Amino acid sequence: MYLFFLIKQDNEKELLNQTIIYLILCKKIMANRQTIRTERNIFNALFRIMQLKNFNTIKVVEIVEEADVARLTFYRHFSSKEDIILKKIKEIIKCINDELNTRNNINLKESLHIVINVFEKYISFFTLLIKNNLEGLVVQSFKKDIYSIIKKVFLINNTNKYLEKFYEGAFVYVIIEWLSNDDESGKVFFEKAYRLFSSIDVNYS
Amino acid sequence: MYLFFLIKQDNEKELLNQTIIYLILCKKIMANRQTIRTERNIFNALFRIMQLKNFNTIKVVEIVEEADVARLTFYRHFSSKEDIILKKIKEIIKCINDELNTRNNINLKESLHIVINVFEKYISFFTLLIKNNLEGLVVQSFKKDIYSIIKKVFLINNTNKYLEKFYEGAFVYVIIEWLSNDDESGKVFFEKAYRLFSSIDVNYS
Repeated sequence: MYLFFLIKQDNEKELLNQTIIYLILCKKIMANRQTIRTERNIFNALFRIMQLKNFNTIKVVEIVEEADVARLTFYRHFSSKEDIILKKIKEIIKCINDELNTRNNINLKESLHIVINVFEKYISFFTLLIKNNLEGLVVQSFKKDIYSIIKKVFLINNTNKYLEKFYEGAFVYVIIEWLSNDDESGKVFFEKAYRLFSSIDVNYS
Repeated sequence: MYLFFLIKQDNEKELLNQTIIYLILCKKIMANRQTIRTERNIFNALFRIMQLKNFNTIKVVEIVEEADVARLTFYRHFSSKEDIILKKIKEIIKCINDELNTRNNINLKESLHIVINVFEKYISFFTLLIKNNLEGLVVQSFKKDIYSIIKKVFLINNTNKYLEKFYEGAFVYVIIEWLSNDDESGKVFFEKAYRLFSSIDVNYS
């Protein structure tokens, strides 16, 4: 990474101030890049171990060894092995939200396409989670953040908490069903999901 | 409990055989009653502790002390503290299924009524679970057994796995939303849920 920072200041004190700001900025960017790298490294290590053994039997010490990081480093980034998964799913949901937010007046077809495309990238991760009976963890981590996606996909205006939960549950369960079996491509699933979701008519107000 | 068992047999060997059968039967019934009593006792102990502290911080030794049973007894009935909750939810689902199965040609209104009535009995248990962030555990334990209920409530014939999951997710999320807040009576919720579920039209085949 190269970071160009133009310092042009006649006043000597100002020059010093700006240099300090520059140094702090550099340090922050480097630390952030390091955080992302370390967290990705730890996630990949857990993912590799999960392909060999059941999640319940995996110990933090094994993840630490596989990732080749210090135990202290692990706990600076994650509170537990579950936390690694929760953070990864949060990252995936954020990624979908960012993509959806770049478009205006998006319809069901387009938004569903975006959602399925992002999930498809991580399908082997989700399949592994569900094989490890971690469906509950997936649902738990979807809970806080997925509603913003549902609102965009189904064009729901804030109406009624039960109607919102109705759509949320239906959507989450259908997506999880697809993610449970990595034998159906995103394209095939998209056709089915679009046909299903566009056939629903709720006359509830 | 009194158990009358009429032994009327002239043949001496047959009399002995029947007495043995009678004794085995008695022992089985007593053991089963003891199992139910012990499991209920342990569940109640966990429930009491959960009112005072967070589930994650509760240790099996505390449950064992509160229930006044031996550690070995605990592990003869449950594999973990999570297992206590999973078994209780299984029992609740079975209770609903048994009630639904006594009726023929049941409609949405009647079946929803039965489901909500049973859940209402355990609303403080579920509210506590969800307050403890154990929603994932609830979803996980619903997973295996709730589909038989959904099928009866929504009169679904085995059609399409995504359509099934659509109904299952919608139903589970709406029920959990209600159970999360113990401030709405079963009667009020029933009216809302019935209005919502009867307003859905799925033109999907």
